[in-house]
Amino acid sequence: MPMSQGEYVRSPNRFDERITADGSTRWPVEAGRYRLAVSLACPWAHRSLIARRLLGLEPAISVAVADPIQDERSWRFTLDPDDRDPVLGITYLAEAYHAADPDYDGGISVPAIIDVPSGELVSNDYPQITLDLATEWTAHHRPGAPDLYPKPLRDDIDEINKAVFADVNNGVYRAGFAGKQEVYERAYHRLFARLDALEERLTDQRYLVGDTITEADIRLYTTLARFDAVYHSHFKCNRNKLTEFPALWGYARDLYQTPGFGDTTDFDHIKRHYYQVHTNLNPSQIVPLGPDPDTWLTPHGREQLGGRPFGDGTPPVPTADQPVATEVTNR
Amino acid sequence: MPMSQGEYVRSPNRFDERITADGSTRWPVEAGRYRLAVSLACPWAHRSLIARRLLGLEPAISVAVADPIQDERSWRFTLDPDDRDPVLGITYLAEAYHAADPDYDGGISVPAIIDVPSGELVSNDYPQITLDLATEWTAHHRPGAPDLYPKPLRDDIDEINKAVFADVNNGVYRAGFAGKQEVYERAYHRLFARLDALEERLTDQRYLVGDTITEADIRLYTTLARFDAVYHSHFKCNRNKLTEFPALWGYARDLYQTPGFGDTTDFDHIKRHYYQVHTNLNPSQIVPLGPDPDTWLTPHGREQLGGRPFGDGTPPVPTADQPVATEVTNR
Repeated sequence: MPMSQGEYVRSPNRFDERITADGSTRWPVEAGRYRLAVSLACPWAHRSLIARRLLGLEPAISVAVADPIQDERSWRFTLDPDDRDPVLGITYLAEAYHAADPDYDGGISVPAIIDVPSGELVSNDYPQITLDLATEWTAHHRPGAPDLYPKPLRDDIDEINKAVFADVNNGVYRAGFAGKQEVYERAYHRLFARLDALEERLTDQRYLVGDTITEADIRLYTTLARFDAVYHSHFKCNRNKLTEFPALWGYARDLYQTPGFGDTTDFDHIKRHYYQVHTNLNPSQIVPLGPDPDTWLTPHGREQLGGRPFGDGTPPVPTADQPVATEVTNR
Repeated sequence: MPMSQGEYVRSPNRFDERITADGSTRWPVEAGRYRLAVSLACPWAHRSLIARRLLGLEPAISVAVADPIQDERSWRFTLDPDDRDPVLGITYLAEAYHAADPDYDGGISVPAIIDVPSGELVSNDYPQITLDLATEWTAHHRPGAPDLYPKPLRDDIDEINKAVFADVNNGVYRAGFAGKQEVYERAYHRLFARLDALEERLTDQRYLVGDTITEADIRLYTTLARFDAVYHSHFKCNRNKLTEFPALWGYARDLYQTPGFGDTTDFDHIKRHYYQVHTNLNPSQIVPLGPDPDTWLTPHGREQLGGRPFGDGTPPVPTADQPVATEVTNR
């Protein structure tokens, strides 16, 4: 991973072309043309899965799910028959990167949007991908799809996203991948100071910006979903567990129990990825058994704060992946 | 560390001679003659420090505190001036082992009782050391010292000690040092099944055996004190934190706030030892900042269960090491 002075530095996204509704780029919005490659483990890819579900873009954009365990050639489609993605016909995501740029030798990341006819990577620009799903793909949104990036709220959403990215989404990585004690401690303090501020913000307010779900909630959620399962121990973000923040824990469960969030959250992929891939942090590759994910299904009481989760729209129809409480829990 | 089929196996204690009141061994009880070498990090050594304090044996048996970070020659007195224990005059605890047996090439462990005149190790037999402090050293107990191993309760104490040792005291090591996923999972399930049983036992009962503090409480306490700070993350014992067991957490705080327990509990030595010595588990050697130890000082409400902590005796006089709440906590 890229390091500077013992500090983890996230690589810039190299492929930042955009799919547009108005034809202003070489990639037009077109149902069935693009494939979204994700890992269910990855918080940055998880954003795009949630947005796709909330907006009802499943029929328009198909998904390729990578094995949560990368090998030395990075993400691979080894969960599929014959170890190949059935639509793209490739084993390694890197093949789509090299179809777009044969000389590319940077990192291979998800989410990645791939043009199916040419097999070329279009974009791995995760912050833009979800915004474009919300704003460029409107012709293919389901009836009742929410507006995840409403014009009057964009400044507020951008502002909170910036803080959440620096201190939380990327903050947990800065703590976990720190090479020096003081670098870790700085990231830890920034993370928990921000979580304290978010706890306060969410105590009397159901969602981060306004009273409906927006892009800001998607971005915070994907880190919170991984917090107790991974970041608390593996990345040493252990001042307290998410379950010890009353408002944040209620907020996270509220979203988890909303179609589009829990049904795209896969704790098995999440835990195996972090604990088995980062051998520098966990040489034994043993995956911790706890904590019990069924606690995510406990009542959160956030309805009493009011709010209209989907604004004037409606929730997506639950799928078979919607988590439900099992009869007997082993805690 | 000794391993078999991916399973951690604790080394037997090699030096098991006993100090006796009746002169039946070559080591007679004698105030000022012996020195107890400990690490404040080590749960096995911590037992002996608690027993010594509760019994008021400080004037009779002095203590040498090792650096929490061992080097390749194991425990060392590098916290002392000139890197030597001022009484024994040695840098490495191994020197006392070799004074007793020049050919010894096994592990070097604490607690260790050393005969000061000869410099020889007498015993590293930690389960026997505390029992002997309670039963052989009675002539030097303080007025009001409790009976930590009362004759009518010995069978009950021995029985619970056996279960707590196998599943909890040593169980956390079996989970943390497991070399295979299934070995880890077996230890994890045994640990939490036992903690669930202890939680139930301690819900309506203030102490483990009867209504006063005994040897059994000392042995359980030293693992509980390290649970959230270390074992939960470092040893992957993460079904839940100690703070999530209402009775066990109340019980642990009740003891912590009792003179002899909290004043011998050093979270700094504990955390630095585990996270910096086990480079196989934590290659970065970064020490997590959380959780906040001040939560150990919160009210526990266990007085309402009744009980007589020191039976017919009295608590030890608090020392300057007795933990007290600071005015401002940073949580």
